[in-house]
Amino acid sequence: MDLPCTPAYALKFRLRIPNRPGMFARVADAVAAARGDFGTITIVDETREEVIRDVTVRASSLEHQNAISRAIGGVEGIRVLSVEDCTFAAHEGGKLEVISRHPIRNAADLAQVYTPGVARVCEAIREDPRRAWRLTIKRNTVAVVTDGSAVLGLGDIGPLAALPVMEGKAALFKTFGGVDAFPVCLSERDPARIVETVKAIAPAFGGINLEDIAAPRCFEIEARLQDALDIPVFHDDQHGTAIVVLAALSNALRIVGKEIGAVRVIFSGVGAAGVACTRLLMAAGAKRIVGCDSRGAIYRGRAENMNPAKQWYAEHTNPENVKGALADALAGADVFIGVSAPGLLRSADIKRMAKRAIVFALANPEPEIRPEEAGPFAAIMATGRSDYPNQINNVLAFPGVFRGALDVHASRITEGMKLAAAKTIAEAAGAPLRPDAIVPSTFAPGLAQGVARAVREAAVRDGVAGTRGDRIAGTDELHSPAGRP
Amino acid sequence: MDLPCTPAYALKFRLRIPNRPGMFARVADAVAAARGDFGTITIVDETREEVIRDVTVRASSLEHQNAISRAIGGVEGIRVLSVEDCTFAAHEGGKLEVISRHPIRNAADLAQVYTPGVARVCEAIREDPRRAWRLTIKRNTVAVVTDGSAVLGLGDIGPLAALPVMEGKAALFKTFGGVDAFPVCLSERDPARIVETVKAIAPAFGGINLEDIAAPRCFEIEARLQDALDIPVFHDDQHGTAIVVLAALSNALRIVGKEIGAVRVIFSGVGAAGVACTRLLMAAGAKRIVGCDSRGAIYRGRAENMNPAKQWYAEHTNPENVKGALADALAGADVFIGVSAPGLLRSADIKRMAKRAIVFALANPEPEIRPEEAGPFAAIMATGRSDYPNQINNVLAFPGVFRGALDVHASRITEGMKLAAAKTIAEAAGAPLRPDAIVPSTFAPGLAQGVARAVREAAVRDGVAGTRGDRIAGTDELHSPAGRP
Repeated sequence: MDLPCTPAYALKFRLRIPNRPGMFARVADAVAAARGDFGTITIVDETREEVIRDVTVRASSLEHQNAISRAIGGVEGIRVLSVEDCTFAAHEGGKLEVISRHPIRNAADLAQVYTPGVARVCEAIREDPRRAWRLTIKRNTVAVVTDGSAVLGLGDIGPLAALPVMEGKAALFKTFGGVDAFPVCLSERDPARIVETVKAIAPAFGGINLEDIAAPRCFEIEARLQDALDIPVFHDDQHGTAIVVLAALSNALRIVGKEIGAVRVIFSGVGAAGVACTRLLMAAGAKRIVGCDSRGAIYRGRAENMNPAKQWYAEHTNPENVKGALADALAGADVFIGVSAPGLLRSADIKRMAKRAIVFALANPEPEIRPEEAGPFAAIMATGRSDYPNQINNVLAFPGVFRGALDVHASRITEGMKLAAAKTIAEAAGAPLRPDAIVPSTFAPGLAQGVARAVREAAVRDGVAGTRGDRIAGTDELHSPAGRP
Repeated sequence: MDLPCTPAYALKFRLRIPNRPGMFARVADAVAAARGDFGTITIVDETREEVIRDVTVRASSLEHQNAISRAIGGVEGIRVLSVEDCTFAAHEGGKLEVISRHPIRNAADLAQVYTPGVARVCEAIREDPRRAWRLTIKRNTVAVVTDGSAVLGLGDIGPLAALPVMEGKAALFKTFGGVDAFPVCLSERDPARIVETVKAIAPAFGGINLEDIAAPRCFEIEARLQDALDIPVFHDDQHGTAIVVLAALSNALRIVGKEIGAVRVIFSGVGAAGVACTRLLMAAGAKRIVGCDSRGAIYRGRAENMNPAKQWYAEHTNPENVKGALADALAGADVFIGVSAPGLLRSADIKRMAKRAIVFALANPEPEIRPEEAGPFAAIMATGRSDYPNQINNVLAFPGVFRGALDVHASRITEGMKLAAAKTIAEAAGAPLRPDAIVPSTFAPGLAQGVARAVREAAVRDGVAGTRGDRIAGTDELHSPAGRP
């Protein structure tokens, strides 16, 4: 049982413990013997005779949870009153709540937020739809849309089983970006019908975050929706990942003293994330990118196992027309970016890379190569995991990106806005830069606000902002009655 | 300007007033002269020389607002610092917020509500979809669905302009029923496509509230959705209205000492609300119902101006086969229920009704006949307006109906559940019953909880409950790790 303990597998035990010295130590010893990790420990109640404590213990797996349960259950003199799995407890009843921004306490409140008062607000919006940006939730609300076809490391689990992820995403939107987000879990797989459905529900939203939709369907859905709608459509698995990868890579290159235009970058995986990362890295100046799928490098003229995304890839990357397997392409390369599958590489592969190699092994939850294996041969190592340094985590980007886009009523997210977001995230990693801290902490104060500011400015520069965020055309007179003195 | 002042037209003035006796009285006199009504008055700041006050004044119309503004602006010695329309201010930025039920403060929280912990919850739901009722927002969440085709008294204003109403509805769901509701405003008119869209987004919801969808489209949409989904589909304009009308009528009949099976009931309007009210009244025992449209009574064999809903009406009502105009049908009738158009009736029409007549004139905002006109000839009078007694208001029903349905995972709302809701609302009107209080106050404590209880019991009786509300099949083991001692 060598996996690290994680809060994701925490158990909370409610224990009745005799109130005398040494009794809790028995519990501590049992947990230590079972190799569990203590989380918070609180006192629920106590008398002279006994103490009731809630004791949280982190485990590494279900089996480990059971082993810890048995160990605690076997401690002489203490009694286990209840056990709960903290992750399931945190999901009990769902993770979101929709609340009224104003208290409705009496008939006067009712007359203003509902009938008859609301009718005047409806009329005002009918006269000038732009007013919805000021007078409705559209101003601050994003749909988190999925069909449940490519969820985390789980794959195609369908819309209902994907709901906890979308709820979590919405919770992060609010916590980090102050954005109201709502899950739209679609029991629909046909791209054309997904597009029609999202178009149909779009009026109430100021942005669409596509989530965990499988490639190549996700490309078509995003492109067609963005054509049809005048609000941003952003597939986070593509663009959120690309923004954070670019931020991390910029800092990594600074540390190893290489230039983005000069380095050779090998991608493993040319699905949604791989293609988006490639495009954004190229927008940032990268020139020598080679993408690999299970058949090896993608080059001009390759015929087998192609699709439109790979065709684009063949035409726009790999200027030296490298061919062959991933491991061969890696020889002498400066950067490896894996968005593919677990355990594809061995330390020998990393050893063949150029000096001061950068390795981003982002397959989740199990990376293309573990840091323990790659470490000796890579100057900088990043993964998608929270239990290693340098976690490439989309939450660094999407709350600020949508916060900024909503603030200026952006009609789309441009490459300029993504580059600006990546730059801000890179700068927030702190000085001096350290190889084990190339991205900022998720909880870095003001990060989303900084990203939002950069995104707003870029939106205005790129001509996709509907406002500069200070006022909405056509609504001011609503608050200035004609008779105002 | 004889309309009553209402909070729906309130203005908030921020005034700088010299701090000496008699100065505020000048403002009061000016407002009185302009026939405005004071709401709340607060002190924002004060010095020895002056007081800053926020003064809310209710008006009856836009013109009246302007007259009051001019009057206050003309008071010598005071200065108007700002004026805002309270209804628009209450809508500023939208009326809803989507929040996380748990704080996300650190990496451990993140690991439980999002990756990697959330993956285990997704897997658990994939194994047994019933677990979504416990582990996701489905448990407590309702979609408020509209196409904006029949909004309040405004008619077909489209989905975006309808959004403030849907937000208000969602705010009422939460305030009165503890139900999380979210607006789904559809830019789509074809019934078949509306059905497909709502089916596609249904997984995250425990119920569907259809709102302000025009007849006859609403009938088809509701019926097809209810056939396709295993959660309740409830067109509030139909069934919410029917429940409250039945509650009010039950009490009105008790007061006038008549029996529902014996009275002759004339409906004006056989659209969505009229048909649903008729069906529920019949389920409650009404036998002598005659419906009228603009061509008069609907009877067996009528050929002109018919549609499927009216065909049903012709076949199931009007046992005496009454023909002729509304006013003629009214002669000798015990009950008039108007869900049609403003000002259709004169006092002479009411005078021709039976003794101790009951008149529900529910057209909104302007009733079929004003209480002032009908009053002398009706024993009991109700409208849809908040500024007269006996307001027939759906908010008495829908929060409790959905609260109850969600609590037991009802698959639909049966006639039995509606009858139970109506009975509870009628009983909550209080004793002794008064002709001007045949329904309870919207803010009657515990009303929605009482309705929910009755609805839960009826759902179990009618065999549409997925649970009795105490536990969810298949989820308990999730909280009892195998190793539990």
